[in-house]
Amino acid sequence: METKSTQEVAPSVVLTSNLVLEHWQGHRRLTRRVIELFPEEELFTYSVGGMRPFAQLAMEMIAMAVPGVSGALTGTWQYFDESDFGKADPKTKEELLQLWDKTTGIIDELWPQIPEARFQEVDLAFGQYEMPIHAVIYYFIDNEIHHRGQGYVYLRTLGIEPPGFWLRD
Amino acid sequence: METKSTQEVAPSVVLTSNLVLEHWQGHRRLTRRVIELFPEEELFTYSVGGMRPFAQLAMEMIAMAVPGVSGALTGTWQYFDESDFGKADPKTKEELLQLWDKTTGIIDELWPQIPEARFQEVDLAFGQYEMPIHAVIYYFIDNEIHHRGQGYVYLRTLGIEPPGFWLRD
Repeated sequence: METKSTQEVAPSVVLTSNLVLEHWQGHRRLTRRVIELFPEEELFTYSVGGMRPFAQLAMEMIAMAVPGVSGALTGTWQYFDESDFGKADPKTKEELLQLWDKTTGIIDELWPQIPEARFQEVDLAFGQYEMPIHAVIYYFIDNEIHHRGQGYVYLRTLGIEPPGFWLRD
Repeated sequence: METKSTQEVAPSVVLTSNLVLEHWQGHRRLTRRVIELFPEEELFTYSVGGMRPFAQLAMEMIAMAVPGVSGALTGTWQYFDESDFGKADPKTKEELLQLWDKTTGIIDELWPQIPEARFQEVDLAFGQYEMPIHAVIYYFIDNEIHHRGQGYVYLRTLGIEPPGFWLRD
């Protein structure tokens, strides 16, 4: 069985669990830079084309991250509850960054506990999205890249140079 | 050796080669919808915050895709040459979409030929970017999501509703 498994799966491995975590946290470090670059007021109020201010987009990322990793780990999917973090919706850039960093730590703590075979299992994420766990995780990552790209436009229209897309440290 | 390999790699597999191809082509189908939604003129001329029009962003994606997959396959990295496609820079939406679809077909043809162990090899992509092949490939995918997110802002400011981010068919 193990030999069969090696032939079927191992030869075409593109990403292992550790590599996905590293990839995501690299993106999250870049998103953190974008949050930092926004002026305090514009972070919470500035909009282009009627879209949400960047703080709201960042809160959407935060709202998906820990509940998503927790759901991947436990099979129990619960939307973000601010009380989990012991504070209300961030009102300042500093509070948002603290919430971001707290999220980073919890992801790092939970991720390695995700059972080995779990990524290929199909689950009903948040009682609504039926897909393999790898697709759930990549939805979070891709959604973050997507909204961060919108933040780049916000910054440009504010006359602020966004960070290089390749920066992940 | 095979048993050892199974224990070390297979248990934490998140994405196999086929899944990555499917993931990317799903994103490429969404990007194609965004190209289609732009009015003909605005596709080539409309800009927000001094950024490039969406046709130029789409051409950057095209310029990376086939040369990148070809480099992953062969180890030879050559930037896109319009003559490879037998036509000059697209001047109409229809020409751009034709180039997009041609790219789709070539990716589908080349991808399954990428040697099994290749994704973990470090290479000097385009003589400039030293990283494992999986990181090169994800750079293309992430760059596309990033710029497409910017295209969503362009569409919104033009009063056009972008496609749902979850649409990949």
